[in-house]
Amino acid sequence: MAYAIYEIISRKRDGQELSRGEIDFLIDGYVSGAIPDYQMAALLMAVYIRGLAGRELADLTEAMIRSGDTISLTGIPGQKIDKHSTGGVGDKISFIVAPLAAACGVAVPMLSGRGLGHTGGTLDKLESIPGLNVFLDAARFREVLTETGMAICGQTANIVPADKKMYALRDVTATVNSLPLIASSIMSKKLALGTDAIVLDVKTGSGAFMIAEKDSIALCQTMVRLGEQVGRRTLGLITSMNQPLGRAVGNSLEIIESIEALKGNGPADVMQVTFALGHLMLEAAGVSSTFPESKKKFLQAISSGRALETFRRFITAQEGDGRVCDDDSLFPRCRNEIELLAEKPGWIKAIDAFAVGMAGIAIRAGRRRKEDDVDHGSGFIFHRNVGDRVEKGQVIASILSNDQTGGREAEQRIRQAISISARKTAAPRMVLYRVDKTGVRAWKD
Amino acid sequence: MAYAIYEIISRKRDGQELSRGEIDFLIDGYVSGAIPDYQMAALLMAVYIRGLAGRELADLTEAMIRSGDTISLTGIPGQKIDKHSTGGVGDKISFIVAPLAAACGVAVPMLSGRGLGHTGGTLDKLESIPGLNVFLDAARFREVLTETGMAICGQTANIVPADKKMYALRDVTATVNSLPLIASSIMSKKLALGTDAIVLDVKTGSGAFMIAEKDSIALCQTMVRLGEQVGRRTLGLITSMNQPLGRAVGNSLEIIESIEALKGNGPADVMQVTFALGHLMLEAAGVSSTFPESKKKFLQAISSGRALETFRRFITAQEGDGRVCDDDSLFPRCRNEIELLAEKPGWIKAIDAFAVGMAGIAIRAGRRRKEDDVDHGSGFIFHRNVGDRVEKGQVIASILSNDQTGGREAEQRIRQAISISARKTAAPRMVLYRVDKTGVRAWKD
Repeated sequence: MAYAIYEIISRKRDGQELSRGEIDFLIDGYVSGAIPDYQMAALLMAVYIRGLAGRELADLTEAMIRSGDTISLTGIPGQKIDKHSTGGVGDKISFIVAPLAAACGVAVPMLSGRGLGHTGGTLDKLESIPGLNVFLDAARFREVLTETGMAICGQTANIVPADKKMYALRDVTATVNSLPLIASSIMSKKLALGTDAIVLDVKTGSGAFMIAEKDSIALCQTMVRLGEQVGRRTLGLITSMNQPLGRAVGNSLEIIESIEALKGNGPADVMQVTFALGHLMLEAAGVSSTFPESKKKFLQAISSGRALETFRRFITAQEGDGRVCDDDSLFPRCRNEIELLAEKPGWIKAIDAFAVGMAGIAIRAGRRRKEDDVDHGSGFIFHRNVGDRVEKGQVIASILSNDQTGGREAEQRIRQAISISARKTAAPRMVLYRVDKTGVRAWKD
Repeated sequence: MAYAIYEIISRKRDGQELSRGEIDFLIDGYVSGAIPDYQMAALLMAVYIRGLAGRELADLTEAMIRSGDTISLTGIPGQKIDKHSTGGVGDKISFIVAPLAAACGVAVPMLSGRGLGHTGGTLDKLESIPGLNVFLDAARFREVLTETGMAICGQTANIVPADKKMYALRDVTATVNSLPLIASSIMSKKLALGTDAIVLDVKTGSGAFMIAEKDSIALCQTMVRLGEQVGRRTLGLITSMNQPLGRAVGNSLEIIESIEALKGNGPADVMQVTFALGHLMLEAAGVSSTFPESKKKFLQAISSGRALETFRRFITAQEGDGRVCDDDSLFPRCRNEIELLAEKPGWIKAIDAFAVGMAGIAIRAGRRRKEDDVDHGSGFIFHRNVGDRVEKGQVIASILSNDQTGGREAEQRIRQAISISARKTAAPRMVLYRVDKTGVRAWKD
């Protein structure tokens, strides 16, 4: 059957559903260059405004996946479960939940990205471990996964090339912020990796991609339905990203906090999110059926040292220095430390995650542009979190940097990000909703 | 004030109104090449779906006009009134109404185009007059207008270049059929000519650009409001284009029919449309205030020979052979004539204008593509029109062509275009509505 791009644009413009054949023609033609950017731009705007039905979104995502390579995990023993976060500030859950789930018998393969703007990136954080290599070919990725139960590497160039080309166009035509287009962009890359299930951590709040709770829920539902529609078990959580996750923000600082968490010293908010996401992974793998059962397994994996041992073996398998698990002086260090003192007594009411992420750019813990380098040692330690009591003159946060000017800019931004209230405030609930194919439910620990 | 194209696209995408500054930035940037096609394509799709407010449309149209040259008519005596038709089949009204209005003291300058698809073009028709030149520079155009009361030439290259570039992009991105974009495209070119008023003939029916009556009315209202908003008196009519206008379809055949009309032998449907549009021109010029008054003036201009004399002087001024007004053997002739006979007796119920236009392409009376040549002699003569009685075996239409294969293809198409009913049918009402700044009213002769 022959299709014409003009008809395809017209039909979507008028709010009609595109057929599978039309969508295949569109993606094949765009990737091959037969369909020019200006026609794709018109179509993307029509999709932005008119939306996509569930079936169209599944067809689009599958066509995008077929545009490039996929990574098969067949032959690797056990259930393979991917965990994906929509990104935030201080989000180090991958480094804790992956060893925990692996220690409980789940294989955890992850294709991750770098930080941009206010959000940090998994690969940047891992690279703060001396020697660690995130550039694995598919064969080595499978080996590391088989040997250690987890593997994390960068997406190779030819995974979903359609998404790369479409994203670059969306970026300059004001069509990024479309629910189905976001969902297909994220899920095509997750689905290209042949896991048994996908667990999604959709953040909500000032430091999240989706600020409003209803938008975060809608994105999570769209991705869960999309995954299930193409035959992949998909579960998701909505978690809070109004304040940074944990006490550490910055590449090596977050790895150090993760290692502490694997030793049983994780901050409460980090462990809440870790255990909830980990439970979804164990549930999807058929290893555990209730949250209390999963939590018990995780606490055993921590107390027995198996979780930390898994992380150490993963680091070593990916050519990193496993001794970092016992000696954090092996991580990059910063020359300057600025201590931020409380100007009045009270309770920490808020630490604006977005503002903290932007402060991180000032000290090169994060990137303004893709081509920027990051400083693996710089970052922030929050000695007080939301809900904590603080007295006047106490240290609320430390700013670690190699650049005095950047450090002072970050100090100002962090100061503005923190609000202190005279009234007692509660620590925020971290895990808000669970989303699966049956719907959305409030999360209960 | 600095504008960013990304913000402009986003705002229109979300249905917001663009400011005059934003619109100027957009058009200037697109014409200069600073804004690439893919960003304009996304914006045009957003405009297609979200629409434009009246003020935005006026700003867009004015920005488009400023992208190129305008033609001033100051210093030319009398009121200068342009007449524009949205195009149809057999539409030769310009060649009759311009001399009539000019004979009544109105100056009629027209920048016209060529035929494409099923609709004929004013310039192609004029060029069937031996020697006639439609390529006039602005100075000569003003001279012809001053000397003869009318002038018709092709649009020069640098009138509204923004429209040329935008139209080419709309053509391949399914954004042609947008009311505000159509209105700005038509009106920018009309407004670039410094007339005192614009009279619009918006066709409706199978052979028209807008088939549905409500769409034709909406387009006419949009253009009238747009003209008035930028300070140009604008009046319009909605006229029927379900069947070809008059008896002749084809370049020289239509000029011959027009000359006959100027001698008082015009078909009833042609004269209805001519007098109604002519009245709007005289009214806009302040020459007449009622239709009966205008009609009386036109009938005097015909009976006195002044209208024909004006046309002859116009032809001569534009280097054509004025003797064609008395001797139609000077026009190009065709070798073959096919007579189409009625297969049954009855009344002509319909002659589908679109099908007749497409039949014209088969004998090269019209163009399939812009680069095609036309045959100035080929065409159709309808000996019976809608509402006429016909007996079996009588000649309904003659097909004149220089190509036997094309002639036979046209014969088949014309046969299918004509329906004969056993019941008496009425001749169609030709002039349906009058549109001006006060609104839409049913037309009364």
